[in-house]
Order: sequence, then structure tokens, then C-alpha cells
Amino acid sequence: MDYTAKLDLAIERLHEEGRYRTFIDIERKRGAFPHATWRRPDGEEQPVTVWCGNDYLGMGQHPAVLDAMHEALDNVGAGSGGTRNISGTTVYHKELEAELADLHHKEAALVFTSAYIANDATLSTLPKLFPGLIILSDELNHASMIQGVRNGRAEKHIFRHNDVAHLREILERLDPEAPKVIAFESIYSMDGDFGPIRELLDLAEEFNALSYIDEVHAVGMYGPRGAGVAERDGLMHRIDIINGTLAKAFGVMGGYIAASAKMVDAIRSYAPGFIFTTSLPPAVAAGATASVRHLKNDGTLREQQQTQAKILKTRLKGLGLPIIDHGSHIVPVHVGNPVKCKMISDKLLEDHGIYAQPINFPTVPRGTERLRFTPSPVHGPKEMDALVRGLDALWSQCALNRAELTG
Amino acid sequence: MDYTAKLDLAIERLHEEGRYRTFIDIERKRGAFPHATWRRPDGEEQPVTVWCGNDYLGMGQHPAVLDAMHEALDNVGAGSGGTRNISGTTVYHKELEAELADLHHKEAALVFTSAYIANDATLSTLPKLFPGLIILSDELNHASMIQGVRNGRAEKHIFRHNDVAHLREILERLDPEAPKVIAFESIYSMDGDFGPIRELLDLAEEFNALSYIDEVHAVGMYGPRGAGVAERDGLMHRIDIINGTLAKAFGVMGGYIAASAKMVDAIRSYAPGFIFTTSLPPAVAAGATASVRHLKNDGTLREQQQTQAKILKTRLKGLGLPIIDHGSHIVPVHVGNPVKCKMISDKLLEDHGIYAQPINFPTVPRGTERLRFTPSPVHGPKEMDALVRGLDALWSQCALNRAELTG
Ligand SMILES: Cc1ncc(COP(=O)(O)O)c(C=O)c1O
Ligand SMILES: Cc1ncc(COP(=O)(O)O)c(C=O)c1O
Repeated sequence: MDYTAKLDLAIERLHEEGRYRTFIDIERKRGAFPHATWRRPDGEEQPVTVWCGNDYLGMGQHPAVLDAMHEALDNVGAGSGGTRNISGTTVYHKELEAELADLHHKEAALVFTSAYIANDATLSTLPKLFPGLIILSDELNHASMIQGVRNGRAEKHIFRHNDVAHLREILERLDPEAPKVIAFESIYSMDGDFGPIRELLDLAEEFNALSYIDEVHAVGMYGPRGAGVAERDGLMHRIDIINGTLAKAFGVMGGYIAASAKMVDAIRSYAPGFIFTTSLPPAVAAGATASVRHLKNDGTLREQQQTQAKILKTRLKGLGLPIIDHGSHIVPVHVGNPVKCKMISDKLLEDHGIYAQPINFPTVPRGTERLRFTPSPVHGPKEMDALVRGLDALWSQCALNRAELTG
Repeated sequence: MDYTAKLDLAIERLHEEGRYRTFIDIERKRGAFPHATWRRPDGEEQPVTVWCGNDYLGMGQHPAVLDAMHEALDNVGAGSGGTRNISGTTVYHKELEAELADLHHKEAALVFTSAYIANDATLSTLPKLFPGLIILSDELNHASMIQGVRNGRAEKHIFRHNDVAHLREILERLDPEAPKVIAFESIYSMDGDFGPIRELLDLAEEFNALSYIDEVHAVGMYGPRGAGVAERDGLMHRIDIINGTLAKAFGVMGGYIAASAKMVDAIRSYAPGFIFTTSLPPAVAAGATASVRHLKNDGTLREQQQTQAKILKTRLKGLGLPIIDHGSHIVPVHVGNPVKCKMISDKLLEDHGIYAQPINFPTVPRGTERLRFTPSPVHGPKEMDALVRGLDALWSQCALNRAELTG
């Protein structure tokens, strides 16, 4: 057994498939988002504009967030020093959970170190609480949900993306007495399309299934208080478990679920991914609380972001660029080839100082490779002009299709 | 299907078994560790001394760490804004990884959001890299390693705790050509006993298996540069994958592996738990780097901590308290009954202002319930006197055994 040869093989496979990833070293400048410094592989520094971050509202540089973090650092230090059960619960964690429960109008919330682990830990623990559980999962659910479903080892059925009729077919075949959960997202982040939340909840109710929604790309972004798409659509109260992140629109780090007090108590008590890990640093919890609170009370950034997204989409459509437009805040531009996708991204970065990571397999299916732009309130007219001009030039230079793709 | 009834049942089970957990709300005071404020369930505040944290050296309040975090917050803001591949790699992450690779004298290191996810993601990804992999795992390995082994779905064999002869027996039965990995810890944190690292590595080499060590409770704490027990014992170069945390002795948050460049590149490329989650906030990475660097160059705190542990053990032994002493920095006191264990912990907290969480099943086997004390350089003679006196009084009051348990 030659272990090194096997590693070579595994890495070689990535190169062959054109999906070996080189991380781009990017340092944003507080107070000057989306401007950043790119540290080139040769060690040189170059100013760039970040167009692919998920800090959608620029909350990562908001004074309310930074002040709260500085203050917590000064008051209680760096780490929490323990798991939630063994000295790692502080008033910062409790405040954050109360804030999140209130945000979603649920009885309780539970904070994890990330939304990845919140999805994985919760979905893999549900079968312990409901023996015989059957999980119904949208085929395009995020990797962290897929892991949670796999790791829980319950019976699972994958329904075609957003296909309510297919889900119904499956549900009709299942034992009506068996416990079930339907798991889906409110916004699928790579296409920017919405889940048919109302129809999915109708089915959940008709078939007495629990509902589990990932609002990771929607919290902070939609709804009068930024609780997500389900809030905007008046559906939040019908959902059993809501999953969200503190690391995208809220600009900090961490993840959570919001649910009934009993559900949260049970997950808290049975999920290894919650129990056996050091809790978030108090300063991170404090920053997240400040961010949630700000976006709950002030919709300005949310509205600005939607406006920016609309302007960008309109301008790119005007040039005939193949954008994928489902009406959300995410602006994917279809390329459809991993090598070209990487090439355009490289040229944008090197020639135009614009950073948008190419999105290739396995993040999206092969043949749907794309650039994914995330406009935000911190992207001004000058930055948008530069992006539109840069893309227009590259599209001509590389003789790419100019045909609009909508879904 | 009555979901609420099932939740009631799951929670009821915990109450019946005396293992329902109530989190104690503790806020440490920066500059005054181990002093903290306990927010009682009735809302009153009470000063307490924390004796069960895992910030073993008090690095969570070290000026080098806090300065680095404040500075990074000022420079680049709160969160990273993306996954490592999509705008979430910064010079802070790269510096941290370089620092950790150097710490362990390995070619490379890879930072995760926690050591929990580092264990889970790495162990569950190894079978993808080495098809047919067989995992040999110590029966007392941490929950995060158990999850990783389970989730990877490779063939697995559990060997009796620290039982090298048993491991040999298993290895002799296996296909010599099959890829294998032996997974174990350097310090088992609940008993404070050491793994037989040298003998395990001998076996790994004899049977051409990879070696995987969790040094979570040892990094920062052992070895001339704080790289762990394997460094202290001159064995680090013989280990294939080293796992550590940034959240215990280093006082911040996050986890990592250190290994060959190829191994790290493969895990980086194939582990969903690494790929599909927002990277650590730059300020967290900066604080961790400062902490690692400090403890690499200065062994003072490490030595003070060992001295404190020795003094505490000697004093508790002098009173005939049943401490479990394997010569490590952890001081467990055996109680052996979940109800008594919780009662002593409650009394320590309420009557003596001393916080040590009871350690009950499932964290330790039933019948071995204990209090687990973590002395540190920040615990002065006054704090230690108070602890020793408090325990002595309670041991008499509750008519508990005074018999030394050693392993
Ligand atoms: C849909 C979805 N769910 C969950 C996650 C994980 O969130 P976090 O970054 O907090 O781990 C992500 C991305 O990171 C995501 O896109
Ligand atoms: C042995 C061991 N490994 C891993 C972990 C997980 O570390 P982290 O807190 O960084 O997730 C812990 C405790 O938290 C542990 O005790």
C-alpha cells in the first residue's frame, strides 16, 4: 500500500477534471468594503474589488458589529474556554439565542459554530428523536444538509429540485403513520432561485411531516425584520425548524436553528455536533447579536442591496449577458465550461482588478459553470461600471454567448 | 404520529437518567481570570472562580492575543465573508496555517472552524482518498473522532483503550495489503491519561498503517514549543496526521490538522466539512496565530500550569480525596454517582463560589461520574486554598469515600 501514490492519484484527478482549486488570498479593508488587497502568488499586492463575497450587506464592517466585538473582547477575553455545558455558556450566547428566537418568532434558538454544523448536527439527530423517521430532501440541498441526512442514516427520499408534484408522489407511497421531515432551502445560492415554500408546507401539513428550511442565504436579507423569505411570505409560523447562518448577511460567524422550545431542548441534548465542541467566542456572539438586532430594526441596507441587484441584472441583461435571474439578490452569469469560467475569472482579476471566483463542479453541476456576483450596498456606481465594462469586454474577447438564460 | 409526544419522551429519558443538562451562565472577567460572574437562574449575579475551563493557560486574556484580535477587527472587519475558496482566504488564515505547520514540523496545516469538524471531516474523508481503508480506533476516542469514523463508513475496528496487544491482534487478522489508519489521542481528557504513542506508532509502522493523533488537550501544553505530547516524546515526525484545537490552551477558537503537503492538499480538496462553510473570522485567526507564536517561544505558562496541577493533586491526595492521577495536567476527582456528582457541584457553586461542572454520562461511562478540575497559571494560592477547603468540607458533609484512585 503506497499512501503517497494514492494521494497523487486523488489530486491528479482534480487537475484532470479542471477542478483543482487554488485559494485566492484576499484581504478586505474595513471601512472600504468592497475594496480589498489581493496578495498575488508572486507576493506582490494588488488592489481589487470583491464581487463574490457573501457578506451581502457589508455588516462585517458595520460599527455596531465591530463595537460590540471590541467591547466583548475587552470584557471577557478571546475564547469561551469551554463547550456550552462545561463553562462555555455566557450571557452573550444567551442573548444571541434570545435575539434569534425573537427574529423568527419561535420559542427558542440554538447557536452552533456554523450553519454547516447546524444542518449536519440537527438533521443527523432528528432520527434519534423520531425513530423510524423518513427524510424527504430536495436534490439541490446544500452539502451540509446532504451530510446531515447521510449521517443520520434514516430512510431518505430525494425529490427533484423544487418539484412539488414529485414530492407528493413520494409522500403518497410512504406509510402515513411514519414520522417524516421535508428539508429544503428558501434560496438556492448558486442559481438564486426560491423554494416553493408555501406548497412544500401545504404538503408537510397534509402528510403530517415536519418542515425544515435552510434560510442561510436569506436571513438578514428578506422580510420586514430580515428573518428570511418565509417571513416575507408570511409562512414562518408554519415551519418547524429554521436554519440560518451568522456568517453571510450578518457578517460574522456561526449558525443556528430556531424552533419550538422542546425541539431545541432535544437537539441541544442529543446532537454531538452541538455538545462536544467549544462554543463560539463571546466576541463573535456579541457581534452577531448586534448585527441581527440592527437588521431587525432597519431595512435600509436590505432595500439598497435589492436595488443594487436589480440595477446590475438590468445592465448585464442590456448587454445580452446570459444571467440567471430568478428575482433574488444573487446574480449568476452562465459560462457553461470550467476552463473558460476559470479563464474569465482570472482575466477579471488580473486585468480589471475584479474578484469573482469561478463556480465549477462539484459546487454546481458540470456544464453549468458560472460566475456568481454578489452586489451589495457597498458597491457604488463606479464599481458597478467597472464590472459591467469588464464583463462586456471579456465576453467579446472570448467570443462567449450573449443569450439570456432565465428560469 | 405525535411529534411533540416523541420530544417529551426524549427529554423525559434524560431527566430519568439524571443527565438532563442545565447550562450554567458564566462570564469570565478579562484581566481577572479565573474570576467570573455567574448569572443565577433567578437573575442575580454572583462572583465565582472557574475551575473547569479548558483555556488551560489563560491565553484567552493574554494581551498578545487580544491585541492581535483588536487589530485584525480594525483592519479587515468582523467575518471573512466567504468559504475558503470563495473570498474567505486571507493572509491571516495563511499565516495561521504556516505557523501551525511550523509548530508541528510538518509540510502543511489546514484550519477548520473547530477541532470537532477537523476530526469529523478528516476521518470521514480518508476513505475517499484510500479506497478500502480500514480504521482502527481507540474505544475512548472523542465523540468527534467517532463521528468521523462513522460518517466515513469505512470498515472499522475498535481496540480496547490504550491496549496495544489488542490492537496488534486485530492488525494481524487484517489484509496486509489493505490501507489502514490507527486513530488515537495523546491525552484522554476525562481521565487525563496518555496514549501509548510510541507503541502505537511502532505498530503503525510494522503494519504499514497511517497514524492519526488528536492532540487537542496537549497542544500549547506539552513539548518545548507546545506542539504536544508527541513533540515532548520526540515522536512527532513519525505521525502522519496531527489534529489540534485553537480553542483550549490557545484560548481562541478553531481546529486544524498538520500533515504532509499532499495529505493536506487532498483533505482540503475533498472534505465537505472544510469546503462548504464560511472560514474563521480573520480576527479569530489572528488571535490564534498570536497565541501559538507566544507559546512556541515561551514555556513559562506551560511550566506554571504543570506546577499548579502537581500542587493541587498533592493537596487533594493529602486529604485522601479519590483523584485520578496519570501525571497529566488534568485533575479528575472520582465521585461515581451522577446524583451525588451534581449535588457536590451545585454546593461548590452555591456555597463556595467554585464552578466545576459535574461530568456525567455520556461524557464518561456510568459509575465513573466525576468532577474535573483544570488548574492553570491564573489560579493563585488563595483560589487553590478555597477549592481544597471546599472539597474537604463537602467530602465530609456528604460522607464520600476518601480513597485514592490511580490508574
Ligand atoms: C445553503 C447553505 N447552507 C449552509 C451553509 C453553511 O453556512 P456556514 O458558512 O455558516 O457554515 C452554506 C454556505 O456556507 C450554504 O450555502
Ligand atoms: C479530544 C477532543 N477532541 C476534539 C475536541 C473538539 O475540539 P473543538 O472544541 O475545537 O471543537 C474536543 C473538545 O472540545 C476534545 O476533547
